[in-house]
Amino acid sequence: MTGGENRQIWLQSRPNGIPRASDFGLRTAPIPTLKEGQFLVRNAYLSVDPAMRGWIADKSTYWPRLEVGDTMRAYSVGEVIESRNPRYVPGEKVMGIFGWQDYAAVDEPAVYYKVQDNGLPLSLWLGVLGLNGLTGYFGMTEVCQPKPGETVVVSTAAGSVGSAAGQVARIKGARVVGITGGAEKVQQCLDEFGYDAVIDYKAEPDIDAALKAACPDGIDAYFDNTSGAIHDAVLRQINLHARIAICGTASFASWDPWPEGPRPERHLLVKRATMRGFLTPDFEDKYGRALTDLVTWIQEGKLNYREDMLEGMEAAPGSIETLYSGANSGKLVIRL
Amino acid sequence: MTGGENRQIWLQSRPNGIPRASDFGLRTAPIPTLKEGQFLVRNAYLSVDPAMRGWIADKSTYWPRLEVGDTMRAYSVGEVIESRNPRYVPGEKVMGIFGWQDYAAVDEPAVYYKVQDNGLPLSLWLGVLGLNGLTGYFGMTEVCQPKPGETVVVSTAAGSVGSAAGQVARIKGARVVGITGGAEKVQQCLDEFGYDAVIDYKAEPDIDAALKAACPDGIDAYFDNTSGAIHDAVLRQINLHARIAICGTASFASWDPWPEGPRPERHLLVKRATMRGFLTPDFEDKYGRALTDLVTWIQEGKLNYREDMLEGMEAAPGSIETLYSGANSGKLVIRL
Repeated sequence: MTGGENRQIWLQSRPNGIPRASDFGLRTAPIPTLKEGQFLVRNAYLSVDPAMRGWIADKSTYWPRLEVGDTMRAYSVGEVIESRNPRYVPGEKVMGIFGWQDYAAVDEPAVYYKVQDNGLPLSLWLGVLGLNGLTGYFGMTEVCQPKPGETVVVSTAAGSVGSAAGQVARIKGARVVGITGGAEKVQQCLDEFGYDAVIDYKAEPDIDAALKAACPDGIDAYFDNTSGAIHDAVLRQINLHARIAICGTASFASWDPWPEGPRPERHLLVKRATMRGFLTPDFEDKYGRALTDLVTWIQEGKLNYREDMLEGMEAAPGSIETLYSGANSGKLVIRL
Repeated sequence: MTGGENRQIWLQSRPNGIPRASDFGLRTAPIPTLKEGQFLVRNAYLSVDPAMRGWIADKSTYWPRLEVGDTMRAYSVGEVIESRNPRYVPGEKVMGIFGWQDYAAVDEPAVYYKVQDNGLPLSLWLGVLGLNGLTGYFGMTEVCQPKPGETVVVSTAAGSVGSAAGQVARIKGARVVGITGGAEKVQQCLDEFGYDAVIDYKAEPDIDAALKAACPDGIDAYFDNTSGAIHDAVLRQINLHARIAICGTASFASWDPWPEGPRPERHLLVKRATMRGFLTPDFEDKYGRALTDLVTWIQEGKLNYREDMLEGMEAAPGSIETLYSGANSGKLVIRL
């Protein structure tokens, strides 16, 4: 593969707030040569994720900070086209952290998993079969653990994580109540994702009353993507032994200064409830079973998803801005 | 037993705040006659517990409200002296909700458990072998789940619940840091309960700095009896996969208006930590094993306890006031 061109999107300046197109540059590098143990992946789809903002920010929570000059870190899915690693054979498809670029010389730890060749679109392995779907799956099955007939509430219910979480709860036999913002997303939750009831938090003057109406038997589990006022309202209506999965805190743009709110301890004590933060990689040893479930449910028509496709490497620099503008209605992916 | 006298302490007026001696009366009733299925218990020791305040208050959280005129609800330990229930034989000792009185006609659900005849003082079944000890045991073993070498923090570390929790953590091999108030209690924690380090929250100007010094490797588990500022400081120093047991919220006299504080969601998410409220009766099916452990540890000299003994029925009316004044330094019990 020597001699070819590798387009890369690189960090040109550290943004103040949400990364804009102007914070990135497009450059061309040679296709990398492989060291022993590496293999060459040709990316087919690049992912655009809210987490990217944190990766670029001065203080990244989970990863080493990305430096100015680095190729943008990103999930992508692609094909092994050359290999100096016997466990990765040309022709195999993989999902992992391969960056916003055409080609990546990949060390094994960067791979999340090999992609099953099952006829489903390859881009799904960045969405409903990628970390978004897995996050909804594990937050629901491992933390919320809904039982048939229980009431489960999901915030950011129309998002790619929330919609997976909500549908897994429905598949597990729960009554599922979504919380989302805007009439269009409410309709999407009802029509495409099969929620039993949906609350439009932007339109509801009284979120407590809306929850009470939507959850007459109280709330047994809550998949929390938001924190903030919605979280507080849900806690006031939890049932005995409720489970609360803390997946994200989207309602706060910043934790400096640290936001305050009503204390949860009393609710947790009186209701003997559990509140647990989780990250999907904590369940890495269960990815195989999870993906088998998710693939099966898609093939059976039980699990729906939405994708928004951008075209070409040129779309990458502005894509994070697009994501934070809320212009997309499904998982945002770039096709190369 | 007909014809004898049964002294009872009854609720004479509903107190405003902490129940005082003047809120109770002493009356004499006939020793009750037994209905089919009941048995007669002669109380040997009566318990005095912080929970009594809630039982009497207008809004009780877990129990039906006690009415003016009722005999005071209380844990006690006593001997079965007459029985119309084949499962309870005269001579057996039992612990349960038998009230502040000499004799109780007991229905089976009021019994917590039969008391092992093992030579230990009978009063212990209201303290370290009663709900206090069990609460420390289960909060630690079931929720905090300390592993050898981990750092565990316990608040109200010298109390009858906290001292049990802290010692169970030590027995399980953890490094245990207590938080308590006052030099005397600090010394008690070090000398009697074997804490590795103790923080005097009343003397420390900076609880964050004190925790950092006492927990150089961070905090893996926290047994929380207080909520409030101590809870918040601990959360800022938890490790990955930390477990927080919510056992009590002693730092707040009232939850109306509902207290606010720094939001825990971000800590729980970033550290993938679990915060769980629990009540001891949730683990009722494990009482047998727990009591066997606690008895063994006492007999082996690994588990210490403190008891404060009041003498006679006449001491009961003023005992809740004594408890809330902090005058006692161990589990407060009344000997009949």
